[in-house]
Amino acid sequence: MKLMRVGAKGAEKPAILANDGTIRDLSGLVDDIAGSALTPEGLARIAAADHSSLPQLDASERIGPCVGRVGKFICVGLNYSDHAAESGMAVPPEPVLFMKATSAICGPNDDVIIPKNSKKTDWEVELGVVIGKEARYVEESDALDHVAGYCVVNDLSEREFQTERSGQWVKGKSADTFGPIGPWLVTRDEVPDPQNLDMWLEVDGHRYQNGSTRTMVFGVAHLVSYISHFMSLQPGDIITTGTPPGVGLGIKPEPIYLKPGQTMRLSVAGLGEQQQKTVAYSG
Amino acid sequence: MKLMRVGAKGAEKPAILANDGTIRDLSGLVDDIAGSALTPEGLARIAAADHSSLPQLDASERIGPCVGRVGKFICVGLNYSDHAAESGMAVPPEPVLFMKATSAICGPNDDVIIPKNSKKTDWEVELGVVIGKEARYVEESDALDHVAGYCVVNDLSEREFQTERSGQWVKGKSADTFGPIGPWLVTRDEVPDPQNLDMWLEVDGHRYQNGSTRTMVFGVAHLVSYISHFMSLQPGDIITTGTPPGVGLGIKPEPIYLKPGQTMRLSVAGLGEQQQKTVAYSG
Repeated sequence: MKLMRVGAKGAEKPAILANDGTIRDLSGLVDDIAGSALTPEGLARIAAADHSSLPQLDASERIGPCVGRVGKFICVGLNYSDHAAESGMAVPPEPVLFMKATSAICGPNDDVIIPKNSKKTDWEVELGVVIGKEARYVEESDALDHVAGYCVVNDLSEREFQTERSGQWVKGKSADTFGPIGPWLVTRDEVPDPQNLDMWLEVDGHRYQNGSTRTMVFGVAHLVSYISHFMSLQPGDIITTGTPPGVGLGIKPEPIYLKPGQTMRLSVAGLGEQQQKTVAYSG
Repeated sequence: MKLMRVGAKGAEKPAILANDGTIRDLSGLVDDIAGSALTPEGLARIAAADHSSLPQLDASERIGPCVGRVGKFICVGLNYSDHAAESGMAVPPEPVLFMKATSAICGPNDDVIIPKNSKKTDWEVELGVVIGKEARYVEESDALDHVAGYCVVNDLSEREFQTERSGQWVKGKSADTFGPIGPWLVTRDEVPDPQNLDMWLEVDGHRYQNGSTRTMVFGVAHLVSYISHFMSLQPGDIITTGTPPGVGLGIKPEPIYLKPGQTMRLSVAGLGEQQQKTVAYSG
């Protein structure tokens, strides 16, 4: 299933992209694409409904972030060996973890605000993993049972804030609109191999990132298991699994960063496409 | 006011410690000590009620975390110069920020679980700041207007996970029960000077930490303003402002870490006292 949230910011309705391409309102079935709706039981209940009989929503409405009430937004750093190299850092022996503020989350096509005093706002296409079942010290072999599904994430990053402002990385990862997620939460049954998904990102039509989850250092099952040894995971938590090469920071001879008025497009195979315009902060 | 949450885990009722020492149920007034109840309007509404007419709650009931639905749990590192020295680190030129998982939050007197495979679980008494009004690029002079109140935080930390497992610090700060908060959220009007609060922490009756918020490197108003330049803050977010000297890591000649069966007691002046027993993880 392709689950989504549709409507104005803060007033999104839970919805499904039905097989006939229409968007159907799930409000009668679940309160949100969040929490208990993401559990195996919640997803089974949505799957069992006759989607063609649900109210149809206007396809022109804003698409919100595909998950509501996200409890934790956990990021994995340097998880593609080539991206570590372009960042001038070694591939870590264990996953590097950091957080994004959940207040950074926005819809997949919302404007991305360049923060005040930012000189180094950068893009990162990533595979997002949405937790559907509480996970605590789970084994790698069981880890995918705790995954509700997957989504596209743009892990926007301010490189000066991230690494030149006396630490830690969360400082450069957390500005409002730095976390577009969606358009859809694609349930796990529709993503048989999360380690074989092509992904790309373009700015103003130039393709900067062109990778695949095949080259992840630590795969999804390993990450879910690993993280669950350091904190418990709840339905609605999101893990974003790192970015392949091609971020602005890594461009030679000089890095390239985002300016207001640009357009990003990005996608992970099967999970839909995002498109954001960059705008200056106006407070 | 001293606001609190009382009852079994996940089923806490909003409550107030009334002036006569009784605990009164606020369920008729607010749904939780969370979100909109923490705004200036929400707090005014609670203040205006006749507390003596509210249902009395049993004083022997469990005290839960003093804030519900915490959106972000933001930590400031190395914010007492003496603690930086004992940790072998320099005082940073700007605040060091990192996150704790919100799933680490627990009640002030709940058992603290030593994580599986932990050898270096450590204590940190801290002043917690609870946000009551959205903050985005606020000036230091206005910053305290965005604070609902204060609470005691024990920022439990696994030092090996924090610094020896390929980063970042969140990895050692986020285990379940690593974030006791409370017993009370003491509203700002009752804490005229947050930079003049004595604080202490004992393990099995031995006083390891004995400090004061007077020796913070960056004070509360500066921190709220500073953080609001990197992420927006919402009502119910918590900032924990760093720990004074005396953590286990800093003890000479050898660090001392927590073992199962010990008792921590800690307090910040005027904000109440916490007491936790340490237990081994049993999964």
